Amino acid sequence: MKTQSPRYTVRFSVEGGGEREIPVPEGVSILEAAKLAGAALDAPCGGNGTCGKCRVRLLSGTAGGSRSRQIPPEDYEEGWRLACASPVRSDLSVLIPGAAGAYQSRMKVTALDEGRERESFAAFLRELKGLGFTGDSGIETLTLTLKAPDLEDPAADRERLLRVLAEAAGVPEETAGCVSIGLYALRKLPRVLRESDFSCTCVIRREEGGGLRVLDVFPAGSAAAPPVLAALAVDIGTTTVAAVLLDLTTGEILASGSSGNGQIRYGADVISRIIESARPGGLERLRGALTGECLAPLIAGLCAAAGLMPEQIYRAAAAANTTMTHLFAGVSAEHLRLEPYVPAFFEGRGFRASELGIAVHPDAELILAPAIGSYVGGDITAGVFSSMIFRKEEFSLFIDLGTNGELVFGNKDFLLACACSAGPAFEGGEISCGMRAADGAVEACEIDRETMECALSVIGGGKPAGLCGSGLIDLIGELFRCGIINPRGKFIREGERIRRDPWGAASYTAARAEETENGRDLALTETDIDSFIRAKGAIFSAVRTMLAIVDFSVDAIGAVYIAGGIGSGINVEKAIRIGMFPRLPAEKYHYIGNTSLSGACAMAGSRKAAEKIAGLGRGITYLELSSHPGYMDEFVAACFLPHTNGDLFL
Amino acid sequence: MKTQSPRYTVRFSVEGGGEREIPVPEGVSILEAAKLAGAALDAPCGGNGTCGKCRVRLLSGTAGGSRSRQIPPEDYEEGWRLACASPVRSDLSVLIPGAAGAYQSRMKVTALDEGRERESFAAFLRELKGLGFTGDSGIETLTLTLKAPDLEDPAADRERLLRVLAEAAGVPEETAGCVSIGLYALRKLPRVLRESDFSCTCVIRREEGGGLRVLDVFPAGSAAAPPVLAALAVDIGTTTVAAVLLDLTTGEILASGSSGNGQIRYGADVISRIIESARPGGLERLRGALTGECLAPLIAGLCAAAGLMPEQIYRAAAAANTTMTHLFAGVSAEHLRLEPYVPAFFEGRGFRASELGIAVHPDAELILAPAIGSYVGGDITAGVFSSMIFRKEEFSLFIDLGTNGELVFGNKDFLLACACSAGPAFEGGEISCGMRAADGAVEACEIDRETMECALSVIGGGKPAGLCGSGLIDLIGELFRCGIINPRGKFIREGERIRRDPWGAASYTAARAEETENGRDLALTETDIDSFIRAKGAIFSAVRTMLAIVDFSVDAIGAVYIAGGIGSGINVEKAIRIGMFPRLPAEKYHYIGNTSLSGACAMAGSRKAAEKIAGLGRGITYLELSSHPGYMDEFVAACFLPHTNGDLFL
Repeated sequence: MKTQSPRYTVRFSVEGGGEREIPVPEGVSILEAAKLAGAALDAPCGGNGTCGKCRVRLLSGTAGGSRSRQIPPEDYEEGWRLACASPVRSDLSVLIPGAAGAYQSRMKVTALDEGRERESFAAFLRELKGLGFTGDSGIETLTLTLKAPDLEDPAADRERLLRVLAEAAGVPEETAGCVSIGLYALRKLPRVLRESDFSCTCVIRREEGGGLRVLDVFPAGSAAAPPVLAALAVDIGTTTVAAVLLDLTTGEILASGSSGNGQIRYGADVISRIIESARPGGLERLRGALTGECLAPLIAGLCAAAGLMPEQIYRAAAAANTTMTHLFAGVSAEHLRLEPYVPAFFEGRGFRASELGIAVHPDAELILAPAIGSYVGGDITAGVFSSMIFRKEEFSLFIDLGTNGELVFGNKDFLLACACSAGPAFEGGEISCGMRAADGAVEACEIDRETMECALSVIGGGKPAGLCGSGLIDLIGELFRCGIINPRGKFIREGERIRRDPWGAASYTAARAEETENGRDLALTETDIDSFIRAKGAIFSAVRTMLAIVDFSVDAIGAVYIAGGIGSGINVEKAIRIGMFPRLPAEKYHYIGNTSLSGACAMAGSRKAAEKIAGLGRGITYLELSSHPGYMDEFVAACFLPHTNGDLFL
Repeated sequence: MKTQSPRYTVRFSVEGGGEREIPVPEGVSILEAAKLAGAALDAPCGGNGTCGKCRVRLLSGTAGGSRSRQIPPEDYEEGWRLACASPVRSDLSVLIPGAAGAYQSRMKVTALDEGRERESFAAFLRELKGLGFTGDSGIETLTLTLKAPDLEDPAADRERLLRVLAEAAGVPEETAGCVSIGLYALRKLPRVLRESDFSCTCVIRREEGGGLRVLDVFPAGSAAAPPVLAALAVDIGTTTVAAVLLDLTTGEILASGSSGNGQIRYGADVISRIIESARPGGLERLRGALTGECLAPLIAGLCAAAGLMPEQIYRAAAAANTTMTHLFAGVSAEHLRLEPYVPAFFEGRGFRASELGIAVHPDAELILAPAIGSYVGGDITAGVFSSMIFRKEEFSLFIDLGTNGELVFGNKDFLLACACSAGPAFEGGEISCGMRAADGAVEACEIDRETMECALSVIGGGKPAGLCGSGLIDLIGELFRCGIINPRGKFIREGERIRRDPWGAASYTAARAEETENGRDLALTETDIDSFIRAKGAIFSAVRTMLAIVDFSVDAIGAVYIAGGIGSGINVEKAIRIGMFPRLPAEKYHYIGNTSLSGACAMAGSRKAAEKIAGLGRGITYLELSSHPGYMDEFVAACFLPHTNGDLFL
């Protein structure tokens, strides 16, 4: 049926770059129009008007809908609207505020952009080298000088190269037939040979069966620098995608970057994405939102930063949770959320990056970190590798605080994993003033018990822009310590920094408008605190349940490794005090950053590392917490500050 | 610089289907506009106004240029123009006549559409079976029943399949790690397993190293028919592309078809194509004209005819001359025409059909028949295989009459190959009334010496539409026998059937307008006869020169195999009488059809056949005729009917 409603044109101007225009029928929301136009708006609540993140500003035209409580009257006057709650009623011109704007409706872009994160990543790469998990990607260069052709010897370029290649590469006689030249290299070969007087540097990949494939050719000769051989590692988070380019020869990082996962406009959590993927064309839409809108520009940016052609990326690896891995591969994720919760695949080997829509070298292999279950994915196997707990005698606990929370407990003899629905609070998601641990994020704070005034510590040293996970822990810990909130997270004191809106909901202003980067109050609401309490309760109760299942006491834990986007500034004492982590000496806790990314980096650079991670995927035992009878009681008991059983935190 | 000339819109209506519109600046030719609009017009002369093939009809608007001698005044009045000689002077509406129209400016579409061709193809397939060159494609089906998952056993679908696959397929323990599931199959797997109660039929490919790859999965069970496993074979001619779908299980042909090579708008011969390929973007334009415009619809048509999904084509092979092979692979062909005439590659193994832009199963291998030199390509190695001369004790001569002429001479102990520039006359190219051997083609004729009246034999039995190669030989042979033309091909008698145009050029009307399919005279001009004489002279002189080089007499030839689009109706006696073939008993001559296609078909169906053809590529010795001192004299001597040395044909 053809729609009879009038059609209007909505023009989106993205602050700091770019315009898009889209014709839409009357009545669709501005959020929907933005999706159709391919403009990424952050709408973690899925567009139901509750999160207040999809704020845009009307520059001209008329939109329907009434004022939402998330938009103050003066801002409403200036044209600010919730995109999800504003149906199109005329031709519109709409501003999408930039990341540094008053409202942060666009997704944040960060990655290894915090000095300490970068340092810990570099330290990990050095550790890999020491353990021999490096330099064995199979990608090498080989420089050859060929005899130039003449009328007596008119052999083709390919056959001329092959005449000397097998011997030069030390390929044994019996596998010499397995020497091949890929189409990409073949297409370059005639020009390269004639540019360089028939001397060329081949990029080869030694195949596992003993064969060899020529991936690329470059002119050789005295003036020619050896080509850089790069590998790509990607962490595909539900919220954020982070990537690094690795130099396969030196083992150094060539470039790093990150981007919001474009799928976020289909919902903040994996369940929303799975539901979207099951709609007609949904799988392709989600794949496009990830690969086309997010990975393609991210990889292009990394290559530009490193001064490389994308085709110089000869190997790639990605780590992600099970849902993201399926959606990235274009494989149905529907059955992940239906009993008996069976993924389509655990291991993803033997894919080419190009068939997954990644524009690197067309022959580049892309290895997916293996999943263990529907809710413990490749990000965890990669993370366990990075934590190195599988090599240790002592019992360790690995905690990944991503959009979900995952735990792994064990040592070199056994490893158990489980997942809990912590939500994205630790990454700044579903927190009104939340953000990832990047410049401008409050990572620590202290409150004066008397005055209730607040001192903030901001990553990068500038004005505060939002709270990252560690800042959130600190702030809630301080509010609780100072008796400003009660164990249920409700405000019980009054003061200049405590505000109550007309509906009675209270908030604490951590930084006043004039002190913040965006000129608006940085305030934590009771709703935010509630989100956080449920998140920390999920983690704590999962630790308790897992230990109970295997009959270990908390004291048996020799070390706790914290991974994820919570930020390196995490104050473990405060996290323990509010009941997020078990009571253990602070020195047992280690923040190890984005281990999904560092694990992917290990896989990209080393076959041995990829093999080990595959082995971890097969060796870790998965515990299904939700079906465990004690878990729900533990969770309810943990949804207090610090816990209904305060003795646990003495 | 921005062009200042006015822009006009040219609308092309293709007779029998389709319209295209393109804006162009004033003054570009209608031929150029048609190229830009992607409408294929046959212009073998490259658009210089000499061949007269690019006739179109102006329906409205004004074009420049004066009347060409190829357009009679009454047709000019009706709006007929040579597209190449008519610059756009206003908005235009232009009719491109259909294949059956009065003027045949569009390319012909034919293939195995002649009963005898089809029969000889089927006979060849039976012979392959007898020789064991069949059934070893490595593609098989395997039906498995899996245990359904439950909460106790939530292994992923992929891992569940792999648990039973290696054993069921008889893959030995040590290569069990080489069992893989391709992305295409993986994407189907969750749905297929749940549709069929976890019973599925896998399409597997046994890899040469002992591994195994799952290419596809289908629901199994009592109601499910086993899936058809198809292979694609393509002959990429300079003028025509022919293809067949082969059933890998039964060895039968599922469908066949052909299409004009869309590259023809960049020139009729390989040199024009190479020149175009060297222009900016030229290689991609030529690739697109072949794969996008020609192969894609051809394959879609074959699949529709056979009731298959294109993804059910699990293996493919193509044979073509060296230039076409390079352009198909997107590899520069520039050096083919520059001394020392060195191709970029001889052998093309290990490509995936998908990376060559062929939309079949994304994991399908596409094997290119190996070339021997710049002017003896994979069509010839495939053809030599089909002729089976490499298995014989007796000395055989293989002649492929395509757009070029290629010869191979030898037996099971040695084989020599050479090429000569015969031009496309034998396929109906550069002949005003020429066409391929398909329904409507005159394949034989007889002329009454007294009355000069003509009796025609038409393929399919209907009205004549044009002359195919065998008809051309017959007609010229008869004109010569009856003393109507002299040894130089000039008309020396007068009569009702002989017409002379105002410029003095004569023609013979083989069929009058009222007798032909298209209602126009079917006439052979002196220019046509001249083209033919040069073509047959090239073939004959090449045979003589090659035999002289190896010091063999004509009588040493035990058998002659004629391949190519000349038509099965070839009258060898007449061909010998006009000096095209050496004087040998007629029973030594065998017409074996399109051996490039039948050889490709063998490669598509059998690894052993592909291996043998690769071996032929390495084993055949290439002779460069053009550098041989005696060749030019032989050619000049052969450009008479029958020859300057008439004794050769006694």
